Amino acid sequence: MLTSTVDRTLRRVCLAHALRAMSAYPLRVAAVEPAAIGADLAGRVLAAPVHALEDAPPFTRSSVDGFAVRAADVAAAKSGNVVRLTVAGDVPMGAKPAQPLQPGHAVRVPTGGFLPAGATGVVKKEDCRDLGDAIEVVDGAGSEDHITHQGADVRRGDVLARAGDVLTPAAIGMLSGAGVARLELFAVPRVALLVTGDEIVSPAAALRPGAVRDINSLSLTAALRAMGFAPVNYERVADRKDVFAAAFARAFDECDAVVISGGSSVGERDYTPQIVAQAGEPGVIVHGVRAKPGRPTMLAVIGDKPVIGLPGNPVSALVMLETLGKPVLLRMYGKPNDALPYRARLRARLDLDSTLEHLVPVALSRGDDGLEAVPLLGTSSEMHILGHADALVSIPEGSGPVEAGSLVDAMPLSRMTSLR
Amino acid sequence: MLTSTVDRTLRRVCLAHALRAMSAYPLRVAAVEPAAIGADLAGRVLAAPVHALEDAPPFTRSSVDGFAVRAADVAAAKSGNVVRLTVAGDVPMGAKPAQPLQPGHAVRVPTGGFLPAGATGVVKKEDCRDLGDAIEVVDGAGSEDHITHQGADVRRGDVLARAGDVLTPAAIGMLSGAGVARLELFAVPRVALLVTGDEIVSPAAALRPGAVRDINSLSLTAALRAMGFAPVNYERVADRKDVFAAAFARAFDECDAVVISGGSSVGERDYTPQIVAQAGEPGVIVHGVRAKPGRPTMLAVIGDKPVIGLPGNPVSALVMLETLGKPVLLRMYGKPNDALPYRARLRARLDLDSTLEHLVPVALSRGDDGLEAVPLLGTSSEMHILGHADALVSIPEGSGPVEAGSLVDAMPLSRMTSLR
Repeated sequence: MLTSTVDRTLRRVCLAHALRAMSAYPLRVAAVEPAAIGADLAGRVLAAPVHALEDAPPFTRSSVDGFAVRAADVAAAKSGNVVRLTVAGDVPMGAKPAQPLQPGHAVRVPTGGFLPAGATGVVKKEDCRDLGDAIEVVDGAGSEDHITHQGADVRRGDVLARAGDVLTPAAIGMLSGAGVARLELFAVPRVALLVTGDEIVSPAAALRPGAVRDINSLSLTAALRAMGFAPVNYERVADRKDVFAAAFARAFDECDAVVISGGSSVGERDYTPQIVAQAGEPGVIVHGVRAKPGRPTMLAVIGDKPVIGLPGNPVSALVMLETLGKPVLLRMYGKPNDALPYRARLRARLDLDSTLEHLVPVALSRGDDGLEAVPLLGTSSEMHILGHADALVSIPEGSGPVEAGSLVDAMPLSRMTSLR
Repeated sequence: MLTSTVDRTLRRVCLAHALRAMSAYPLRVAAVEPAAIGADLAGRVLAAPVHALEDAPPFTRSSVDGFAVRAADVAAAKSGNVVRLTVAGDVPMGAKPAQPLQPGHAVRVPTGGFLPAGATGVVKKEDCRDLGDAIEVVDGAGSEDHITHQGADVRRGDVLARAGDVLTPAAIGMLSGAGVARLELFAVPRVALLVTGDEIVSPAAALRPGAVRDINSLSLTAALRAMGFAPVNYERVADRKDVFAAAFARAFDECDAVVISGGSSVGERDYTPQIVAQAGEPGVIVHGVRAKPGRPTMLAVIGDKPVIGLPGNPVSALVMLETLGKPVLLRMYGKPNDALPYRARLRARLDLDSTLEHLVPVALSRGDDGLEAVPLLGTSSEMHILGHADALVSIPEGSGPVEAGSLVDAMPLSRMTSLR
């Protein structure tokens, strides 16, 4: 049952409608136990805030190689006025000193070593003469600065991260440093991918006359993974209403969201919106988006699950997945689409039909004054153009020509790893 | 044997020395067969150029739903002057039409359908009246524009990608579209990670007095993976010269590169540079970098293999891996460090000791006029600061204070996926 449908309006209006229709999606939460932390957690999303379980550092320690001292003993020490202290032993790395430090004494400590009770400063080894059982301090000023106090980094109970935060390499280290060995993470959403069409064949198969290569199964799978989802690839679906309906029902049942490529246009074979609309409420929210590439795109919500109908054209499909599908799918995590745009200088003039929003692929490179964006123009059939693009620039409906040299915001296309 | 050593000089000088010392690394090349393409290839690096094996599209086809025609038959058709054509059948999706198109005839075609021989245009279905066995064309101008010619996207033999290119989702689609089912890829370099120190314990273990949590095993493993390498985590290595020497020999033998954390300082226990230097030529290239964080960092090359000695301090280790280690490791792929910096407006004044380069972690956010960078300052012990950083800003040695509002280049920290 269709309750509301936005037809062929602006992309940002379509997106707002779709997001409003989605209540929070009840993603499963997985508790990850000690052994797994650090394994493959980078990129995962926290389902609950994390508090420090321990102070970090867990004890007051030296930040240099040298001698633990009482700061007052050495404050006046300088080259014309050396202070002699008795060396009362050393602190081995990873051990707690048994004895407190007596006035007039010094204890040898390595960087990171546990300071004995009573020590209030550390003299760097290059600031004293080491006589074996004694030292002569040549420069004792600022010995307090060579101490890192217990809890200086993190105090037990501090909030280290919030629900919705993504685990970066540094964040994983930060949590480990505060003794956190168990995390509540959202399960990675399973996103079904249904690629429709009788004419498409895999790149490994023989290409019979009239058939074309399956691009979307490969590019959309890779893009979904790069966006942080777990794509579930269903077999290519034949262009028959009953076959599609059965495949859709199974995918909808097994996954957290469904992405369909092809079959969302207005052609005779395009029964996708009809079958999706019959699956439940609120139903199809958007059918047709005034953006190029992208026009025959569908956004639906069935219960809590997003269903995204992408155009069959591979460039349109990938561009719409990035610019409409991704923010809708991220809503399952409760996250906004918070990727950061690159500001870049346009290298060529753009004079496009102003009745539509245009999403222009660009290649980014370093110029003399910041980044430069070379527009890669072509028809939406030209997949090889998108294959060389780094980012998309939106030229909104109603814009006049954009001159070469203008500053534009370029949204990076999703990719795995930071390797470029 | 040490042949040359750069001691405590600028980071960019250190890096240039290390890169000069590395000849091309003989990474293994893996041929990936059809079934695997698209599986997990995003982020992998091509070892050889890729040529199109087929034209894309592989045949001349319609770009709209409508009727294939001879363009000359309909060029003059308009609402006051309709042209009537006989409908001579239809082209099913994915099939090649058996008969050529006769003058005065039209054949029904779907978007993407194979045009019959003789057809030179397509009239959109909304531009004609469909009478069943005939059509009346109401607007016939520009029918040639609704055709995508064979090879319009890619021609057989075109170079689609070069050695060193990284497979993005779109690039994977592009290659599939041109019939490429077998790729020569570099094997993902195996990078050994040796974390040294008697004092470190895993986040799951009890924290005995004097011990600290192992941060580097977790954060460096995640960072190496996010950079596109395959980290191989060796057990934590005890602070004994013979134990370290044996662990290093094994890691060096089993992997393409070795990253060591800890033990590269000038303390008594820091025998790392000595053992690495004895392993072969050219040996230790850099020992000590005039950057903060980072000073006790070592870069060595043994034969073709890079060996990177990072500080034990977790913030210093991660920052040096990003800014010195990553470009050296990427040299194994023959790639430069071509990550793109974000230009951002600094939100606070930086007035730092100008005798060193500073690598300042920043959090990036959208402001009214582009991105803003909030410096996260602290001592290098403060891992929780790096845990909230998005990027690093380099303030070169000799810089005066950098005022709030200045534009700076922020290098994004490596992360898995585009999820933020």
